[in-house]
Amino acid sequence: MNAPVRPVQGVPQSVTTGPIQGSRKVYAAYPGRPDIRVPFREIVLSDPNEPPVRVYDPSGPYTEAEAAIDLSKGAPLVREAWIAARGYEAIEGRPVKPEDNGNLSAERLVAPCPAKRTIRRGKPGELVTQYEFAKAGIVTEEMIFVAHRENLAREAMLEQAQEKIADGESFGASIPPFITPEFVRDEVARGRAIIPANINHPELEPMAIGRNFLVKINANIGNSAVVSTAAEEVEKMVWAIRWGADTVMDLSTGRNIHNIRSWILRNSPVPIGTVPIYQALEKVGGDPLKLDWEVFKDTLIEQAEQGVDYFTIHAGVRLAHVPLTANRVTGIVSRGGSIMARWCLAYHKESFLYERFEEICDIMRSYDVSFSLGDGLRPGSIADANDAAQFAELETLGELTKIAWAKGCQVMIEGPGHVPMHKIKVNMEKQLRECGEAPFYTLGPLTTDIAPGYDHITSAIGAAQIGWYGTAMLCYVTPKEHLGLPNRDDVKTGVITYKIAAHAADLAKGHPAAQIRDDALSRARFDFRWEDQFNLSLDPDTARAFHDETLPKDAHKVAHFCSMCGPKFCSMKITQDLRAEVQAMEAERLAGMKAKSEEFLAGGGKLYVDAAQ
Amino acid sequence: MNAPVRPVQGVPQSVTTGPIQGSRKVYAAYPGRPDIRVPFREIVLSDPNEPPVRVYDPSGPYTEAEAAIDLSKGAPLVREAWIAARGYEAIEGRPVKPEDNGNLSAERLVAPCPAKRTIRRGKPGELVTQYEFAKAGIVTEEMIFVAHRENLAREAMLEQAQEKIADGESFGASIPPFITPEFVRDEVARGRAIIPANINHPELEPMAIGRNFLVKINANIGNSAVVSTAAEEVEKMVWAIRWGADTVMDLSTGRNIHNIRSWILRNSPVPIGTVPIYQALEKVGGDPLKLDWEVFKDTLIEQAEQGVDYFTIHAGVRLAHVPLTANRVTGIVSRGGSIMARWCLAYHKESFLYERFEEICDIMRSYDVSFSLGDGLRPGSIADANDAAQFAELETLGELTKIAWAKGCQVMIEGPGHVPMHKIKVNMEKQLRECGEAPFYTLGPLTTDIAPGYDHITSAIGAAQIGWYGTAMLCYVTPKEHLGLPNRDDVKTGVITYKIAAHAADLAKGHPAAQIRDDALSRARFDFRWEDQFNLSLDPDTARAFHDETLPKDAHKVAHFCSMCGPKFCSMKITQDLRAEVQAMEAERLAGMKAKSEEFLAGGGKLYVDAAQ
Repeated sequence: MNAPVRPVQGVPQSVTTGPIQGSRKVYAAYPGRPDIRVPFREIVLSDPNEPPVRVYDPSGPYTEAEAAIDLSKGAPLVREAWIAARGYEAIEGRPVKPEDNGNLSAERLVAPCPAKRTIRRGKPGELVTQYEFAKAGIVTEEMIFVAHRENLAREAMLEQAQEKIADGESFGASIPPFITPEFVRDEVARGRAIIPANINHPELEPMAIGRNFLVKINANIGNSAVVSTAAEEVEKMVWAIRWGADTVMDLSTGRNIHNIRSWILRNSPVPIGTVPIYQALEKVGGDPLKLDWEVFKDTLIEQAEQGVDYFTIHAGVRLAHVPLTANRVTGIVSRGGSIMARWCLAYHKESFLYERFEEICDIMRSYDVSFSLGDGLRPGSIADANDAAQFAELETLGELTKIAWAKGCQVMIEGPGHVPMHKIKVNMEKQLRECGEAPFYTLGPLTTDIAPGYDHITSAIGAAQIGWYGTAMLCYVTPKEHLGLPNRDDVKTGVITYKIAAHAADLAKGHPAAQIRDDALSRARFDFRWEDQFNLSLDPDTARAFHDETLPKDAHKVAHFCSMCGPKFCSMKITQDLRAEVQAMEAERLAGMKAKSEEFLAGGGKLYVDAAQ
Repeated sequence: MNAPVRPVQGVPQSVTTGPIQGSRKVYAAYPGRPDIRVPFREIVLSDPNEPPVRVYDPSGPYTEAEAAIDLSKGAPLVREAWIAARGYEAIEGRPVKPEDNGNLSAERLVAPCPAKRTIRRGKPGELVTQYEFAKAGIVTEEMIFVAHRENLAREAMLEQAQEKIADGESFGASIPPFITPEFVRDEVARGRAIIPANINHPELEPMAIGRNFLVKINANIGNSAVVSTAAEEVEKMVWAIRWGADTVMDLSTGRNIHNIRSWILRNSPVPIGTVPIYQALEKVGGDPLKLDWEVFKDTLIEQAEQGVDYFTIHAGVRLAHVPLTANRVTGIVSRGGSIMARWCLAYHKESFLYERFEEICDIMRSYDVSFSLGDGLRPGSIADANDAAQFAELETLGELTKIAWAKGCQVMIEGPGHVPMHKIKVNMEKQLRECGEAPFYTLGPLTTDIAPGYDHITSAIGAAQIGWYGTAMLCYVTPKEHLGLPNRDDVKTGVITYKIAAHAADLAKGHPAAQIRDDALSRARFDFRWEDQFNLSLDPDTARAFHDETLPKDAHKVAHFCSMCGPKFCSMKITQDLRAEVQAMEAERLAGMKAKSEEFLAGGGKLYVDAAQ
């Protein structure tokens, strides 16, 4: 499963490769556009009457059967030709400075990824961002890619799909039975969806974040000052997308930050997000009071040129909002928020992120870096949920959203945090209202504070609900939340848990493609096709291992029972045995009803009497 | 941690004992009633300004510091004097028959628990059930116990509590700020709550199940034909209640079923539920067609005399409902439901459970065994949710509820199953309407089918929601659901996950006591009192282990950071450092507002102009 890669000192020697068990990677080109090849994961079933199930697949080339991965060369250049055709200026790029990697000595420095890319920057007046193209009525290759990707393999299921839509409760979302490139363009133009896609990230397989698309999830990776090594970071990304992360945020705060990011970006098929204030703080030695616009601006340009697809910018933490947190139980729990609050208070000045917001927009527009407007004042406890500080910031984010749109930028909005169930919906409603339906991107929310060690679950309960209400992307929470840095197992658990929340939300919204996989799995379950059941699961390895713990033999994979109830008490076996009988009885019942109805009609029967009579 | 017990061949030699780390067991007598001693778990905090937090504690004597457990003698006789005073007839009891234990030979037979108890039976005309006492206006000791238990330690917090109520969304529940014994009586009399408490289960610490009380959870245990030994079963019960299970269902289906149950009952401080049809089926050699009223009735009496507190009775699976399952994706997934469907179809006769329902009521009333009216036609997949079969059965359960009440019985209703989020609420509303607010007891519901291996999570999402909407008890689901028999770790994971769902529901309903623990934990978190944070968690062991994985030293237990963000990037540390400054700024802001307001009033300012002017 581990492909050898060219060894480079201090960097990953291998990442996890090969298909997820029972699946194969397929690429499907958009009709008439062989250059727009969209990846899917296809689960082939053992019953010849069961069509294979295609699922959304953000895992990139790593899950190909014969993946030839060379991390030093980087991932395939999916977008290179599209971007090149748009004719942006190739630039020299900002030179790497010692402080970009924490002023490390040569022997402690991780070498940067040697894969070379043209660095580009859009000029004023050029169309650069997906938002600008959309507003201009132009359908980009990225939009076509997204449309094809969101449709999965359901071209043949449209009638069925339309029924399913009627079945959901979408709270005002407008999910069409079938996604066209024009629909994607329209959603992006309305600011209701974004396609995070830096023009310096040609390796990206484009994806959309918006309430009228499948609910997405984000996984966080990153070293911290306390543990984790550079070598683990690329594998963490590959591991997270293997299990379904749609975007990955690199929250690294230690040294080697620039060079590790180069390895992640050059090898990432998913959008990479960052919080630039973290690196800016590293550059000034960790003292928030030494931050200023110049070092922040320099960091924006550095990361934009590397290809980061979205930036969390905590421009909503205004000086006047800080006192509103005075009586909170848990104060300010966002790292970026607390840094900016410290800065504002120390100088008793308005935040430079707020004051320089238009300049920030101009920089981000030049590379098409999307905004993720940070919720620096999100509640960190049930007690602080939906308070004045949180909502004051959200109103400011609404104001900033309009400025960013006017500047041509793509925008999404970050959301809480810790929120009990009965206070979740008002968050979604207020966000839609204040921010003009810009995509909401929430952390959890955690619905109780009392379960450290299980916060993937406390938060999945809230995430499923807010996803249902309209949140476009859910930021995962791992079991280690509040306690420590997640390890490999924690990352997987967090990703799978959030795939559950996102999928539960898609089902409840009535997404036309969502139930296909549930139905296929349930049919496999009822038919005792154990291997199909495992393979259709979000995590085939765990499903299989759990089954095999008590019934390891191959013969048990076709057995009409499992160890939960044993052979005599398996309800599915009993009903399977009954099925023909039950169906005959139902046919008889329906025939009886039909006969009665015919009799009734033959007798001139009327259900209603004419009012005139 | 493992107390030695008197060895008996083939039965558990030891069970887990001792307090949960950081907690101590306390008993608090109801004022003026030293015989009504209610258990709580008290979490003592390291900050002398923080009061200890008392939490609801179903774990029984096993978590006492100096627990002297002798499984052969059974648990303390909490209710013996109360029951004895009611003067029921002591009876010889039904003799144990070979088929009660699967006709095992002497050497394979597990010896029964030697603890001897008086077997009692109520007569017609006597008050036996808690429902009958409640209707007669009599407050029983069990009701006083329940009232004191539900109030936790919040006598001193009533004003705060009343604010919290206003904050929740209870969907029509009527949770008072403080529970009185009279309130409990009234809820039981209205059928809106039950206190499962067989008069032959004197070891029981009474508890209530109802929408106006704390949301409860049930854990299932039981051997199966494939794996598990008798010795594990008592420990499974002790283990499940240690982590918070409020009731335990013994779903055993193998041999030794009668004798294993005697060990469980004699040592259980929580209500024990069973599904008598399972044992009845064992008695007729596993062939549903050999079932009849006589063997079923015999089993009811056998188990009622042993002290089982509630029976799942699938009397809603009527002959006419079975054809409605003909086109389901997963048919009938309830074991009891499929057995009865098989019987009805084979003989083309109405279910004997339905036809003999009044006789069943008479038997159950004589011992105060509560009904758990089984949902034999619950959906087993998203595709089958809320279909005609499910709702036809629910309507029948409503009809049966009224009969059981007329017969003096306590009743709760079992619910689905697999239900996507947008179809959950209508289940709750229909159940309340059809069944006259009798407590709802749901399995999950699972909000998607696609995650075998993680169904504790797919179902906790649904359980939290339906608990919020009004479900009184949530039946846990373990990670092994659909795949195999849960082991010890699975049981713990299932219980903790469901404690999360129940607590999230209590918070959202606005239960006046719920947020006390969240707030205490969040204060501990903000103050970096790591030990307090662990101890306040639902699972202190896991929280501590996760933290220590990266920061094992004792010094780290007072450190103002963890490995997630490291020392420089800890937002809580930064805001703590800021707190004095922020509070001064807020005081200034409020003083400014006050000055402005005084100025305004001094100038004769009016906010509104008199309409008359």
